[in-house]
Amino acid sequence: MRYFDDLNIGDSIETGSHTFTEDAIIAFARQFDPQPFHTDPAAAKNYIFGGIIASGWHTASVTMRLIVDSAIDVRASLGSPGFDDLTWKQPVRPGDTIRVRWTCTEKTPSKSRPDIGSAKFLIEVFNQHDALIMTMTSIGLSLRKPR
Amino acid sequence: MRYFDDLNIGDSIETGSHTFTEDAIIAFARQFDPQPFHTDPAAAKNYIFGGIIASGWHTASVTMRLIVDSAIDVRASLGSPGFDDLTWKQPVRPGDTIRVRWTCTEKTPSKSRPDIGSAKFLIEVFNQHDALIMTMTSIGLSLRKPR
Repeated sequence: MRYFDDLNIGDSIETGSHTFTEDAIIAFARQFDPQPFHTDPAAAKNYIFGGIIASGWHTASVTMRLIVDSAIDVRASLGSPGFDDLTWKQPVRPGDTIRVRWTCTEKTPSKSRPDIGSAKFLIEVFNQHDALIMTMTSIGLSLRKPR
Repeated sequence: MRYFDDLNIGDSIETGSHTFTEDAIIAFARQFDPQPFHTDPAAAKNYIFGGIIASGWHTASVTMRLIVDSAIDVRASLGSPGFDDLTWKQPVRPGDTIRVRWTCTEKTPSKSRPDIGSAKFLIEVFNQHDALIMTMTSIGLSLRKPR
């Protein structure tokens, strides 16, 4: 089990990857972000993107899934109070494959709760051409090793 | 049609509302954020939240949907380059109902593209007890009125 104490500043993990299908892009967007450039391939041609692109919230949610699968020990994780500086740098289109680089940049033991700690992570998301398509800074809370 | 030019600093919209069911919380989390406190009601009792809570990405995605339905003119919207300062202040539990207050705080016509503008918004999400459960700052791009 990987506790807060087992995490080091500079630790970096590359996750597995995920490929976006047009069907999945449309299904997510119909539910959560029904704008024509996410839901309608024909209408999307008339927007600056020139075709359908994934909702940024879809990209962020898939990013979370890749992190949970590869980088978080769910037995020690206590969730997150938020994130910062989320930037969508390039659109994700049908057929694109993304992966995530997750790097620990800061860790702070809780003063009020000796059994937990808080860490900061730089999240960088790349596509199959190694282009950086999304970045954010996240905070994660996790359990400390029992003493 | 509501263009960039029709938006004023201080404009504020209250969206419609959305109620989270336990089934929807679990379905979203199984796909995008499979941590026990989002997917397993029994296991969730042993975490600090004391029960199942929605993935923060689920809350953010529903927030986007409420904004698209009430506040964005999809005919003028050109998407967003990102968000800032997303904070999950309180968990969302099964049965909770959220609504969004969307306030324009800044607007800047593009210098390089005379047909578009960029605006900043404060997004505040409340539950049925009027408690603030999530905040973020977003940037939205939209078309200018043809001249």
